[in-house]
Parts: sequence; C-alpha cells; structure tokens
Amino acid sequence: MAKKMMVLPLFFAFSFLAASLSDALVQDFCVADLKSPDTPSGFPCKKASLVTEKDFVYSGLGVAGNTSNLIKAAVTPAFTAQFPGVNGLGISLARLDIAVGGVIPMHTHPAGSEILLVVEGTICAGFVSSANTVYFKTLNKGDIMVFPQGLLHFQINSGKNTALGFVSFSSPNPGLQILDFALFGNELPTDIVAKTTFLDAVTIKKLKGVLGGSG
Amino acid sequence: MAKKMMVLPLFFAFSFLAASLSDALVQDFCVADLKSPDTPSGFPCKKASLVTEKDFVYSGLGVAGNTSNLIKAAVTPAFTAQFPGVNGLGISLARLDIAVGGVIPMHTHPAGSEILLVVEGTICAGFVSSANTVYFKTLNKGDIMVFPQGLLHFQINSGKNTALGFVSFSSPNPGLQILDFALFGNELPTDIVAKTTFLDAVTIKKLKGVLGGSG
Amino acid sequence: MAKKMMVLPLFFAFSFLAASLSDALVQDFCVADLKSPDTPSGFPCKKASLVTEKDFVYSGLGVAGNTSNLIKAAVTPAFTAQFPGVNGLGISLARLDIAVGGVIPMHTHPAGSEILLVVEGTICAGFVSSANTVYFKTLNKGDIMVFPQGLLHFQINSGKNTALGFVSFSSPNPGLQILDFALFGNELPTDIVAKTTFLDAVTIKKLKGVLGGSG
Amino acid sequence: MAKKMMVLPLFFAFSFLAASLSDALVQDFCVADLKSPDTPSGFPCKKASLVTEKDFVYSGLGVAGNTSNLIKAAVTPAFTAQFPGVNGLGISLARLDIAVGGVIPMHTHPAGSEILLVVEGTICAGFVSSANTVYFKTLNKGDIMVFPQGLLHFQINSGKNTALGFVSFSSPNPGLQILDFALFGNELPTDIVAKTTFLDAVTIKKLKGVLGGSG
Amino acid sequence: MAKKMMVLPLFFAFSFLAASLSDALVQDFCVADLKSPDTPSGFPCKKASLVTEKDFVYSGLGVAGNTSNLIKAAVTPAFTAQFPGVNGLGISLARLDIAVGGVIPMHTHPAGSEILLVVEGTICAGFVSSANTVYFKTLNKGDIMVFPQGLLHFQINSGKNTALGFVSFSSPNPGLQILDFALFGNELPTDIVAKTTFLDAVTIKKLKGVLGGSG
Amino acid sequence: MAKKMMVLPLFFAFSFLAASLSDALVQDFCVADLKSPDTPSGFPCKKASLVTEKDFVYSGLGVAGNTSNLIKAAVTPAFTAQFPGVNGLGISLARLDIAVGGVIPMHTHPAGSEILLVVEGTICAGFVSSANTVYFKTLNKGDIMVFPQGLLHFQINSGKNTALGFVSFSSPNPGLQILDFALFGNELPTDIVAKTTFLDAVTIKKLKGVLGGSG
Repeated sequence: MAKKMMVLPLFFAFSFLAASLSDALVQDFCVADLKSPDTPSGFPCKKASLVTEKDFVYSGLGVAGNTSNLIKAAVTPAFTAQFPGVNGLGISLARLDIAVGGVIPMHTHPAGSEILLVVEGTICAGFVSSANTVYFKTLNKGDIMVFPQGLLHFQINSGKNTALGFVSFSSPNPGLQILDFALFGNELPTDIVAKTTFLDAVTIKKLKGVLGGSG
Repeated sequence: MAKKMMVLPLFFAFSFLAASLSDALVQDFCVADLKSPDTPSGFPCKKASLVTEKDFVYSGLGVAGNTSNLIKAAVTPAFTAQFPGVNGLGISLARLDIAVGGVIPMHTHPAGSEILLVVEGTICAGFVSSANTVYFKTLNKGDIMVFPQGLLHFQINSGKNTALGFVSFSSPNPGLQILDFALFGNELPTDIVAKTTFLDAVTIKKLKGVLGGSG
Repeated sequence: MAKKMMVLPLFFAFSFLAASLSDALVQDFCVADLKSPDTPSGFPCKKASLVTEKDFVYSGLGVAGNTSNLIKAAVTPAFTAQFPGVNGLGISLARLDIAVGGVIPMHTHPAGSEILLVVEGTICAGFVSSANTVYFKTLNKGDIMVFPQGLLHFQINSGKNTALGFVSFSSPNPGLQILDFALFGNELPTDIVAKTTFLDAVTIKKLKGVLGGSG
Repeated sequence: MAKKMMVLPLFFAFSFLAASLSDALVQDFCVADLKSPDTPSGFPCKKASLVTEKDFVYSGLGVAGNTSNLIKAAVTPAFTAQFPGVNGLGISLARLDIAVGGVIPMHTHPAGSEILLVVEGTICAGFVSSANTVYFKTLNKGDIMVFPQGLLHFQINSGKNTALGFVSFSSPNPGLQILDFALFGNELPTDIVAKTTFLDAVTIKKLKGVLGGSG
Repeated sequence: MAKKMMVLPLFFAFSFLAASLSDALVQDFCVADLKSPDTPSGFPCKKASLVTEKDFVYSGLGVAGNTSNLIKAAVTPAFTAQFPGVNGLGISLARLDIAVGGVIPMHTHPAGSEILLVVEGTICAGFVSSANTVYFKTLNKGDIMVFPQGLLHFQINSGKNTALGFVSFSSPNPGLQILDFALFGNELPTDIVAKTTFLDAVTIKKLKGVLGGSG
Repeated sequence: MAKKMMVLPLFFAFSFLAASLSDALVQDFCVADLKSPDTPSGFPCKKASLVTEKDFVYSGLGVAGNTSNLIKAAVTPAFTAQFPGVNGLGISLARLDIAVGGVIPMHTHPAGSEILLVVEGTICAGFVSSANTVYFKTLNKGDIMVFPQGLLHFQINSGKNTALGFVSFSSPNPGLQILDFALFGNELPTDIVAKTTFLDAVTIKKLKGVLGGSG
C-alpha cells in the first residue's frame, strides 16, 4: 500500500519533468521528406508523428544486384533517396556485387569517405592520392579498406568466385562520379575531352559511342 | 555651411556603398519559423522584416519550475521550440530548480555538450565517460561544471536549501534522453529491457508501472 | 562487327550500373531558390532539372562600381543573393573598386574569413586581432592578404591610381557590418552609443546626421 | 621520332605543372600517429612518406569475436585506435558476433550515428528517441537499420543461429557507453545510482558485484 | 550459490566485451594541454589517465570581478585558457559584473554566438545586425537574450543596483574584440583610423591617450 | 587638468577589463607551423608572439607562372604550404596562367569548392556533375564561375590572348587530383587502368610513357 502511494507521486514527478519539456521539438533524427526541396544540409524532416520503425530500416541491400552485364558488377545504394532515414545523420551504405572478372570502374564520391567491407570473395581495390601515389591491395573476406573523400578509386574482383562487398560512406548522400560516364557519357564535345585528357579523338569517339555520349 | 555640404556627399557616399549591397540577403541570424518543417540544420528562418528584438529575448527562465513532486526538481528549457531566436546559432539554455532532496535523474543530451552554473545552493553533479570512469563533484554557488556531449550525467541537490542552476548547451536543440523514461516509460517489452539491461522483470515492471510504460 | 557487338553489351553494362543509381537524388550543388525561406545552412535548392550552366556563372563583377562618392570606393558582392550558384558551397566573391584617395571603411564579416587579391594599384590593408594587435601592410598588384573571420579590417587606396581588388570569402553569405553604419546609421540612441564607445554626443550626432541615423 | 619529340615536351609540360605544386603539403588523408597526443579533430598525421597501402587496410574484422560468455556476444571495433587510417575521415566500422540467445546490451555512441548491416542470422534491434518513443524491428540477412547519434539502442539475436552484423559509424571514434557498465561497473556510489535511476540499493549492489563496480 | 556462479560468468562476459574495446582510445572529451601549441580545432588533449573531476569544474566565476573602475564593470571569462575542460566541446562561459552606471562597451566575439542570462539587476542590452538594424531591450532578472556570432553588441546596467550576468558562448574560445581597444588601444596610425571611421584626429588622439594607443 | 584626471581612471578602467582577459589564449587565427605534423583540422599554430603582418600577406601570386610548355599553362597555389596564414581559415587562392591554346587539364579538388575569376582573356571552363551532366561556358574578363567540391572540371584558353585567372577555394588545402597524372603518372598497372577505365593498353602505355608512369 505504502509502495503504491509512493509509486503514484513518483509517476507524477516524472510526468511533471516530462511535461516541462513536452512542447520541445525534438530532432534526434530527420527522416527525409523527399517531396520537399533539398537544402544544403539535407531534406526537410518528415513530421515526427508519422515516423515509424520502418523509416529506420531498409531491405533493399538484401537482394543481389544484376551482374549479367559487361562490367559484371552492380552497385545498389542506400543513400537518402532510397533510405530517407539516414537524412542528416552523416552516414549511408551501398552493396557491391562483382561477378568473376567484374569491376567497379574508376570513380569518386565528391561528398564522402568510404569503407569497403569484403563479405565474400576477393577484391583488388585501390585509390590514387592528390600526390598521384597509388595505394592498392588485394582484400579477402573480412578485410576492410578506407578510401578518403573525393579521390579516384576502383574495385576489381580478383578471385575465382563472385565477390560481395558493402561500402559505408561518411555522408547520407556521398555522390558518385564514374570517370568513364563523366568523360564519355554526355554531350561534352570531343575536342574538349581531347584537350583536357590527352586522349585522342578516335578513342574518345569510340567510348562516347559505347557510353551513350555525343559531341 | 561648408560642413553641411561636406556632410551630404558623405551621406551619399555611404548610401552608395550600402546600395551596392542593398539587395543582399543577410543571414546574421535565422529566427525559427516553427510552423515550417525542420531541416537537419534547423528550422527555416522567419522573414527578416518581421523579426523584432522580442525574438532575441526570452523570459521563461525567470520563473521557478514547480518542484512539488517526488524528484523535487524541474527542468525549464529555452531550446529552439521555446526560444526560436537561438535557431541555427549553436547554443541554448535551461533552468534547473532542485528542492532539498531533489534530483535531476541520470540522462544524456544526444546533440550537445553542457555547462552547469550553480546560482544558488549546493549540487552534487557528475558524469560517466565511455571508459566507465566516473567524474563527480560537489558544486557550490558560482561553480561551473562541463558535461561532454552524449554522456550519462546527473545533478543532485546535496545541500540544505533549494538549489538553482542554469545549464548552457552547445546546440539550439541538444535533446534530452532521461534514462528511466527511455527504459520504463514506453512500450518497450519487459523481456527486451531485461535482456539488454540485466535488470529483473519484477523491477522493470514495477518501474514501468511508475513511469507509465507498458509491455 | 565483333567490335560493335562488344560495344553494345558494354553500353548495356554501364547503363545498368547507371540505372541502379538512376533514382538517386544527387546533391553535388544546391543552387539557391531565393523565393523560398532561408535555413541555417542556406536556401533550399532549385530543382536540378531546371539548373543550367548559367546558374554557375556570374558576370556582375565585370563592371566597375561607381566610385564617384566621398569614400571614393564601391563594393560589388557576388554572395548567394546575387549569385545563387554558391549556395551551400562555402565560398563567395566580391569586387572592390577604390579610386585615388578612396577607402573601404572599418568593417567585419561575421560569418567568413576573407582573402584580398590586388589586381590593380596599391592598397594599404589591415586588421585588428582580439588581442588588439594591428596587422597592416601596403599591398601591390598581385599581392594577397588574409583577414580572419569576424575581425575589424579596412582597405585604403594608398597609391596614385585607381585600385581594383577582388575579395574571396569562406562562406556564400559572409555578412558585412560596416562600423560607421552600425554605430551611426540607425536609431540606436545617442546616449547608448556614447556610453558604449566613449565618443562624445556631439561627434555621434554629427555622424548620425551624415549617415542617416536618428536618436 | 616525331612522336617521341612530342612526347618529351608533353612530359615536361606536366612536370612543370606538377612542379609548381610539388611543395604543396597534401592532406587527402591523415593516418593517425597514435603516439602523439590526440586533438579535438583527431590525432596528428603520420608522415606522408611513411604511409603505405597497409595503413588503409584492416583485417581485424575478419575474425569472429569470442561469444563464449554470458551475453553470448562480442563487439570488435575498427576505430582510430585499431585502424589509424580512418583518422579524420568521419567514418569507422565494427563487427558484431551474437551467438544464439546473445545480446548487445543497451548502449549509446556519444559521437556518431550508426548503421547496422545483418550479414548472417536474425537480429532484433531498436532504439529509444528523446521523446521516449521506441523504434524496434526484427532484421534479417541483408537488412540495414540506422541508429541516430547518442540514443540508447540494443541488438538481440532473435534467431536460431549465430548472428553476424557489421556496424558503420559517422565518426572515426564514435565512443561506446554501455549502460550497465556506466551504472554498475565503476565506483559511482550506490546511493547516487539509486537516487538518479530509481533502482533499489539491493539491485544496484548485486549488479555492481557482477560488473566489478564498488561503492 | 547458483546465483554466485551465474554472477561470475556474467562478470566475465562483460569483461570480455569490455576487453574487446580495452585498447580503444576514447575521446569523449579533450581537456586542453595548454603547454602544447594550439591547433585550428583546439589544443591537444591532456593524457586521459591524468584527467580528474577537477578538470571539468571551475570556480573562478564564483568571485565578483572588480568594478571599481571607470566603466564600472568587469568580465571574467571561463574560456579554454581558464577552464581547459571545455576544449573541443563547443561551449564556454563568462561572468559579467556591472556596477550602477557601468557598461560593457561595444564589442564582438568573432568566433561564437552568445546568450546573456541576467541573474541580478537590470541590463539594457542590444546588438546591431549586418543590415544595421538595432535590436535592444531592457532585461530583468531571469531574462535571457541571444547575440548572434560576430555582431557588435553591448550591455549597460540600466538599473539602480549592481547587475550580475552570465554569458554562454557557442565556442570554447569565442574571442573578444572590444571596439575602443581595437581602434584606440594600439599603434594603428591616427590617419588610418580617421580615414576608416570618419572620426576626426582630435577625437582619435584623445581616446588613444586614454586607452594607451599610439601613432 | 580635470580632463587628465578623468583620462587616467578611464585608462585604468579599460586596463582592468583587458587584464581580466589578459591570460586568455586568443585564437583569431592559426598561422601554420609547417614543421609540426599536420592534424585533421590543419597544422598546429605558430606562437602568437612570433606572428607578424608578413604571415598574412603573400606575394607569390604576383608572378606569372611559366607557360612555355605543352599544356601552355601553369597553376601557382597559395595553399597552406605556400601561405601558412590561411591555415584553419577555410579559404585559399591560386593563380592560373594559360597561354594561347593552353589548358588546365581535367582535375578535381577533393576537399574544396572553387570560384574562378577571369582577370584577362577568355576561358572556356566547365564541370561534370555526379549525374554526368556537363555545365560549361565561355567566360570573359570579369566573369566568375563556381565549381562544386570534388567534381571533374577543366579550363581552356579559348581566346586569342594569354588568359589570367585566379581561383578561390573553400579550404586552405583543397587538394588537386589531375586526372591524367592519377591514371598515367604512377605505377598503377596497365591492366588495372585498362579494366577500370575501358581504355586500351596501347593508349595507356603511351600516356604512361609521356607522364612518367610505369607498370
């Protein structure tokens, strides 16, 4: 009895404490409202009352990407656009499937550093620094490698089986600039590409043809 | 007369300088428009032309919180929700009233470091580091203590009179997670609480009863 | 023929890779939509599909400011308001035209550090640190000088010809607080100015008259 | 021959460009020199000339942690201390091994948000917000869940087989505060724990005994 | 008995978990080692094993500053230099004592926003925005006012009793540039001050005499 | 006489105010001590007492770079390494000299956004976004163009006279990764370059020969 009497006032006590904060707008998280315009810090937040546990979970990385293509590889991102729960939280993930002989071509992430975790197979991965030094190594299952922000890097399946990796980024929206697409997959004129890369026009036009570029 | 003639051109000179900047959108501050959705960096700004000195002043901390409760304490925040003028400015305040025997229970601020200033009375305050080291000390009037971001900490009135403190935060919206509420004040199932805290079910259910939790 | 066959699958391969990313919302940049309300991190972004190369180019600094005024100087900014392409990118520019005998009066930028580049003429520039130490020097064509964020600084044409400079800022919206305007160009009461600056009322009222202030 | 002549000047051209930058100190990365004292932004950098590809690769997560213990779980971190290559890059990883019936007890990371990736098995994971709302869900292989910075969260093996997970953090040094250790694994006096958690002294002393605490 | 047996394995279990983290360098905080050179993010950290609770507590604000001077006011800071525990934590405090008729002269903090809390007396406080708008108000006991980073502001005792205030900053080292010292308390030549402030040489020289300046 | 008496106490008053702050370590700036190891936030600071106005001024951009080379261009940086005064201030500059027919080849700055200012001549400049969209435009004297962080971009002299530009960066150490050097100027094996860029081995080996690469 005495216990119960003690219990109720305790409840009220905490209630009061909570009440004094009850009109506080809490921003532990900011699930992206993708229909609103983006801002430099990320998307506006979905109304807190509409947020559920589903907003913090994503199952899209559980499915292997289709590697039946020439690069024999696929990247499946869980960035803000696919996984709005990471908005504003400084982190995101992606899945890499690389079949035998497959490759994730030379690319950069303008807005984030990356850690690759090899879950299956063998991957030869590397990056080039601003000082033009190359750092590359063959990674086995369980190995991790970090790629500093904004530097050119690549991943190649160097083993005899399909490789599976997961990459983490220090940004919910790290960006992805694939070198060949940037150079050959758009309307950047051939003579500009030639002047700025020292590649010859024939090579450029051939790759433009392959990658859907024009000009 | 000559003076006045000099005066006018000077005026025009400055006017010109100002005019060349007159269409600049200045963002010295960003008083929160709480009706708009939040963003990861804070709320959109109230229109500058509607901002007055009242937006930068808040009187809510001038009133003692009601400590007639079991914890004999009250927290009165001046975060973005109560004081929209701090939006985007990286700082906020709160008032602590702790009656004799009162306590601010173990809690964290996920998004900000804190400095406690003791204005009246005696407060025993402390925090626990990630290395599980405890740092606690009895503070007297005029003493300040800093609590690093995200760590569990507490404040206890250890004197014979009411204690009054003010806490500053390195964020306009530092958040507040009170341990007992987090564990016992919601529908988190008893068996999950038990498994993850090593408390027994009886203790958990009792506190859930007290704190309004279920499950 | 074989080549063409190889080409098409390669195209498909890359297409697939791209497709797997095709619904990603990319935020390499965030051209300001100036009609939307600002946020602490800058303006919401213009829809990416509407962005063109024109959004990243600004020609307003190509025209000399009008220095036919008493300070014989003009500041032409390319901040977010004039050049929305810099929104969220942490950088902006401005042009300084200073005629013979002209001066950019003592001022601060509350939100950014600055580098001055002298393109024509001779400029005596300096700043005062929090420790009240003065750092000033005469700069010639090609010299650059850095002014740390928030400190009072000035630029004076100390040569015999018009001076032209460009200033870069570490913020797309660094702000500009011109000392004389802040003190004398508004309704701040004379007695408050006197008390807080140790200037006498006569001096203050004279400058208020010149600069359009009242009170 | 003509080609070779062209080749050499091209080489010189680039050499010149490089030379003009050759004395630039490049900081693409900052591999931690763990023997030097830490700073608020991380450890001082290892001399660039001593950095090799080994500094960017870590194999410590390839080995399962020993789960032959009562919680039947183990956390293996790859933070700055274990993997100095992540210093300053805003990201790190850890491995979770949770045997059948195992649990990662309630804890927080004061300095980083987290994404859990389930690689094997079934994990029931959740967190509590500042508003005391619980978000928890059963995750299967391939699922990911995000835990916002500083909030209490847990992971439980809710399946019939060993679970393997990898967690990514938005910080190279996110910290880890395990609730039970913070409360019961140190010399924080029992009466302070009791006052600030509403647990009774018997429960506290029992857990202190278990967890090595005193007082 | 069984209980005790259960207890020990539990202890070992946690020990293991802890052991797997035991070599982690934790950086919950970074108490400044003031003897080492500063860095852009703050001072290097004091060795964790030497840190005690005293590093997080400061009593220097408990003593009233000496206001027996012409401005009848004193500022007592608890910045990194006085209170090394705030290093890297984004927050600091200072005490304001303002006797009747006293004033904290016009000044800026280049590196932090500020909140003033009035603990005793009546203070007229205000700031000027980049748009030259003045925001000022008379504050009574318990009122708080926020001053955005880098803007000129002031505090005047406008009551009939001594005023006591505490100011919080969004930086452990916000800086302090007092306008009159910056203009008149150093060797900045009179003609430069005149040109850049529109004050006359007589006024400048008089204040230089008062404030210890030369030139 | 009375004036003098008033003057002295005023001096003392301010002195006192200053004295109460005299032991504050002020960090308005942090001139790099390049002999100490770098940190993630920049170099440790040169002792304040040794800093002079020369630390904030740099004349190295006043001299045209030597464009007598095949690319007919030169980049002259004023990053932390050349101009230690910008350390920690979030900004730096570089000079571009591009002779007729010259080009700054495709490159990225991993750690900063850039604004190009054309001071003389005509420059065709552009960048490619993560979405592979090309934004390029011919810029005339006085035009500025912004290049978002981490994206591939280039500058070509498209006029009939030497072009002179200055580029500003949102970082004191933005980095510079020149595509051709990264791909062909090091020991990255030809087969890896081939696999990750879709260039053929003959092209790669030719460019490796030109650019000093091997493998």
